[in-house]
Amino acid sequence: MIIHTVAVLVNNKFGVLNRVTSLFRRRQFNIRALTVSETENSELSRITVVFEGEENAKQQLVNQLYKLPDVCSIKEFSEDNSVSCELLLIKMLNDSKTRDDIKDAADAFGAVTVDYSKDYIVFRVADTTRRIDDFINIMKDYKILEICRTGNVSLEKSSTTIRQVINF
Amino acid sequence: MIIHTVAVLVNNKFGVLNRVTSLFRRRQFNIRALTVSETENSELSRITVVFEGEENAKQQLVNQLYKLPDVCSIKEFSEDNSVSCELLLIKMLNDSKTRDDIKDAADAFGAVTVDYSKDYIVFRVADTTRRIDDFINIMKDYKILEICRTGNVSLEKSSTTIRQVINF
Repeated sequence: MIIHTVAVLVNNKFGVLNRVTSLFRRRQFNIRALTVSETENSELSRITVVFEGEENAKQQLVNQLYKLPDVCSIKEFSEDNSVSCELLLIKMLNDSKTRDDIKDAADAFGAVTVDYSKDYIVFRVADTTRRIDDFINIMKDYKILEICRTGNVSLEKSSTTIRQVINF
Repeated sequence: MIIHTVAVLVNNKFGVLNRVTSLFRRRQFNIRALTVSETENSELSRITVVFEGEENAKQQLVNQLYKLPDVCSIKEFSEDNSVSCELLLIKMLNDSKTRDDIKDAADAFGAVTVDYSKDYIVFRVADTTRRIDDFINIMKDYKILEICRTGNVSLEKSSTTIRQVINF
């Protein structure tokens, strides 16, 4: 299985998110992460989906996405043609025995402390999926209380926008 | 209309995202942002939804979410009880006339330059929704080529986890 990232630009219309996720479900793609939010145009939303699937099946999926009402354009991202990152919030047990080790690792990964109490510390990390995976793996040696990550978002490495690229 | 943020912890089962978004659609809630991704437990995913709606209707929605198959627990967040943030990627036109102004604003907001060419600059900002809105408003004075944001994610300000809170 290959991991794919696509961004689907849609009209801010009722039910469009549901149509998009339904298509992934019907075609039995496993969604690893999905984000939907506003864009530079208040009438459009961007749905970024990270999913697993074979190359052929993905191409069929993209073709079908284009046929859905209110889908304006679709962009497929690869590591070469895009800038990608995601956001992690991680809540660690605040234990005096491990605090220095946790802090050193957090500093090394550019993590920002966004909440601190005698019981717990919350770090925020914005980085690539791989670096965030690495950070979580290090934190697994200590007591993780809770993790929340956003899933990957991407922009193309070019001065054209998604709408221009797809001839929207 | 009030803006609500809820986190729905679900089993990583086929179709569960679709069931959750369908419920929001059927009850005519407008979803502002949605993120779904992995948690500290590989068998569970967390769906964070930011949406508009009246307090009464929201309470009914939460009750109905609990009845869906594979929904394990639900947490409602407020500004007082949570740490929240989101991630922005913004691609600006690289124009020698405006470059210094853009760079000063980016520095003031702690933005990180993640891509740079003679045509464009891509900044990454991880902060609260309000601060990210402020940054985008400043950038609107220059030429924004593309915006991608993740939507809000939240963790509770407490050492208990979402599963413990809800008696999962």
